[in-house]
Amino acid sequence: MDITVNRGSKTPLYIQIKKQIEGMIDTGKLPPNFILPAERVLSEKLHVNRSTVIKAYMELKAEGLAESRVGSGTVVLAPMSKDAAQEKMYIPPLRWNQLESKRIAKADEQTINNILSVFEREKVISFASGISSEDTYELEKLKIIQNELLEKYREKVFMPTPVDGCSELKNTIKAYLQQKGINAGLKQIMVTSGSQQAVEFFARLLIEPGDVVLVEEPTYIGAIQAFESYDARLIGIPMDEEGIRLDILETCLVKYRPKFIYTQPNFHNPTGMTMSFNRRKELLKLAYYYNIPILEDNPYGELCYEGEQLPALKSLDNNDYVIYVSSFSKTISFSLRVGYVVAGENIINRFIKFKQITDIQTSTLSQYLVHEFVSQGHMRPHIEKIKEKYKKKRDLMIAELGNHKIEGMKVFIPRGGYFIWLSLPNNIRMSELIKSLGDAGVIVMPGDVFYPKFSIENNFIRLNFSYPKEQDIIDGTYKLLECIEKCLKNVVKAKYTVETVINPYL
Amino acid sequence: MDITVNRGSKTPLYIQIKKQIEGMIDTGKLPPNFILPAERVLSEKLHVNRSTVIKAYMELKAEGLAESRVGSGTVVLAPMSKDAAQEKMYIPPLRWNQLESKRIAKADEQTINNILSVFEREKVISFASGISSEDTYELEKLKIIQNELLEKYREKVFMPTPVDGCSELKNTIKAYLQQKGINAGLKQIMVTSGSQQAVEFFARLLIEPGDVVLVEEPTYIGAIQAFESYDARLIGIPMDEEGIRLDILETCLVKYRPKFIYTQPNFHNPTGMTMSFNRRKELLKLAYYYNIPILEDNPYGELCYEGEQLPALKSLDNNDYVIYVSSFSKTISFSLRVGYVVAGENIINRFIKFKQITDIQTSTLSQYLVHEFVSQGHMRPHIEKIKEKYKKKRDLMIAELGNHKIEGMKVFIPRGGYFIWLSLPNNIRMSELIKSLGDAGVIVMPGDVFYPKFSIENNFIRLNFSYPKEQDIIDGTYKLLECIEKCLKNVVKAKYTVETVINPYL
Repeated sequence: MDITVNRGSKTPLYIQIKKQIEGMIDTGKLPPNFILPAERVLSEKLHVNRSTVIKAYMELKAEGLAESRVGSGTVVLAPMSKDAAQEKMYIPPLRWNQLESKRIAKADEQTINNILSVFEREKVISFASGISSEDTYELEKLKIIQNELLEKYREKVFMPTPVDGCSELKNTIKAYLQQKGINAGLKQIMVTSGSQQAVEFFARLLIEPGDVVLVEEPTYIGAIQAFESYDARLIGIPMDEEGIRLDILETCLVKYRPKFIYTQPNFHNPTGMTMSFNRRKELLKLAYYYNIPILEDNPYGELCYEGEQLPALKSLDNNDYVIYVSSFSKTISFSLRVGYVVAGENIINRFIKFKQITDIQTSTLSQYLVHEFVSQGHMRPHIEKIKEKYKKKRDLMIAELGNHKIEGMKVFIPRGGYFIWLSLPNNIRMSELIKSLGDAGVIVMPGDVFYPKFSIENNFIRLNFSYPKEQDIIDGTYKLLECIEKCLKNVVKAKYTVETVINPYL
Repeated sequence: MDITVNRGSKTPLYIQIKKQIEGMIDTGKLPPNFILPAERVLSEKLHVNRSTVIKAYMELKAEGLAESRVGSGTVVLAPMSKDAAQEKMYIPPLRWNQLESKRIAKADEQTINNILSVFEREKVISFASGISSEDTYELEKLKIIQNELLEKYREKVFMPTPVDGCSELKNTIKAYLQQKGINAGLKQIMVTSGSQQAVEFFARLLIEPGDVVLVEEPTYIGAIQAFESYDARLIGIPMDEEGIRLDILETCLVKYRPKFIYTQPNFHNPTGMTMSFNRRKELLKLAYYYNIPILEDNPYGELCYEGEQLPALKSLDNNDYVIYVSSFSKTISFSLRVGYVVAGENIINRFIKFKQITDIQTSTLSQYLVHEFVSQGHMRPHIEKIKEKYKKKRDLMIAELGNHKIEGMKVFIPRGGYFIWLSLPNNIRMSELIKSLGDAGVIVMPGDVFYPKFSIENNFIRLNFSYPKEQDIIDGTYKLLECIEKCLKNVVKAKYTVETVINPYL
């Protein structure tokens, strides 16, 4: 800050100082929030009395150009404050809610964020997440790979890749898919920022307001939200032990002529169920017959703890009816955000356009990390290792759930994946249970969030066993059962005194 | 593959083999594309004649269960092929173009992808990109930080962060913004996957089909595409040497009542222009007066080669009219995909919802890398270093452009950023120039892609000087000028023989 004073001038010194600072503020040389020199410092520098500087600063404050701030001193204000003050301009606040597009959903659910936020908190037992446990990350291998990457690819690790992914990773995915019986060319594969992005792109491509989408009921919350954000009408199709019920599905295909069918055939989120091989074939036949595409979401397929891994719908489909979406989020790392989609070239070309305008490309570093991890052959042993861990945790949670006998409670045991689905006695009050669990420091996912609007069940909860430590599974399950029993007792007590209208949204 | 033969059975051996394989295919044990054992191998294993296995495989092929593939051998086919063959099912191809939402833009421009793809090609001089040069990456520092990260945060580097970003990076951005006079709380800051994502979210939040958005003309192609993907009607406002013209802007504010104004005040892409301080204040006043929000996009603000960095509109705005978007893409690395947005808490909450359904979070590894890089104090020296490089390149390109005197050509010299805007003589045929440049191995961005639809100029090109090496700037500029001269000569020759209707889309 370059200020001079002219002692020969008729203008008082404090006005000289004030004018020069004002000029610097008006021309942007002193930006808003710039901290002016302390009064003592400036007075010593200019060889003037301290009171001269104090007066200059007071003038600036009086004109809305500066203000005193505790801990900072005298701080420059945005020049707009001055203009507004001088022109007595009324600045109406923006009414954002009136500006917002009508498309924007009214509901303000932030379910996923709330779950993720938990990982910044401490001392909570979480059965609510959909992520892997801390001890499953291959830190040592990833560290070596990171260093190798910088040696091998150098700047390339931080430079752009094509929108649809770098060719190294695309080739690796191609080979990986081949092992699963999915034959796709490089132009039919695209890297996405997690599989969520591919699900969203598919919704963006196809859904017009009011279009019907058929989904398993319940289903993945991220799919529900993506489809509903485009004003889709979701129709939930119930499942039996073989997966989505085809009799009801066919009725709905005829009745609603949906835009597409969304399904997770393997270790379904949230129920953990797996679609039988026969059901897969028959589902595909229905899709062919009614000319309806299928979005196959397969994040958990690798994590099979018993029985066989069944072929993907995509591997059974030679007619480009199935769009296949998967990721490395449930195996290598959720937070690298590397997923992929397999679809006809026409679809991929649309998705490339969407990606350009949304995030341009997936992190190059993430892409190379995944590429090297998989192509160096770490994937198979890694999956074997985490399968062993997760199977043990699943078995532990099931055993613990069997420790109290609660009449009317049913545990759905999954063959793989991350989740146990729990059906509670019909008369339980879910809001009370969730509150009681919160007090006990346990979080779970209430089942209703997995149901499309207007088709709400309310006596289910989803339990994740991949994330919590073994001791937490033991302690958390114990507390869960305690809370359930307590809530059931309250129901009996309150039976004739309270109207038990259960609030499905907690 | 577990096959046995029973020599006592009446069923011929080849039928026994075929039936067992068929059973395994039908139940999914042998997935599609599974390669059956070589005939010789299987015959030796089962102690049967090779012709027995050959006959078994032939039966499988006849029934559509397998096929011979060159290089692989006999390969299992999807069981659907068999079903379809048996049931003579006609499977109509999906008509994707009829299924697509009407929202989807008809045009199939893949401009950005085409540019990014160049970096996988060789031997082309690119003036077309918007990225930094290879020698600006702080590889050594980033390598050290990567290793430190894994020591310091361990698993956390690969685990989820909240949807709006990890608290470490958000605090770092908060402090970084404070230095620029932007005072924002943590709830007003959100980490995005590049600033493009924030631009897209803003479009998603506000634009309904037919809504008018006012933009500088020309403007950033990624913004045009994002706004048009929601069927916005873009009205381009011309610029003069102080930035967007407020007289025309005000006329359009009155006439169109736009949803918002999109602007890049600093080192504007593609023109390189900078909005004067006075213009900033007046623009803000107009926004207040007409009650219209401003989306301020500032990717290049740090890269100021001469003169002063002017305060951001956001720092002048105390009324939450300005949504501020920036990133680390043009300084640390484009491909880490770390950007951020500053806006009122109500807007941020909407954006969190959008992020949940689109990519859930930005790569944790990227977030921590940027956080450590900035908070360890590497940012300021890094920016000084790259500014010096880029200024040198800018000056070199300007000098080289002055080497031939081409009448009617005008070079717009930027005070900062990545781009030189070049106005060519009016009579040049752009399609011919681009073709000619392609043959010469030089790519540039034709100006028309930066103009909203229906407001096309066609004698501009954008030249990037940040990416090419110095020798490439010399060689590429020489070739460019040669091509321009050649095209101008052709124009003279062809003057009376060809109808010169210039195709603005090349």
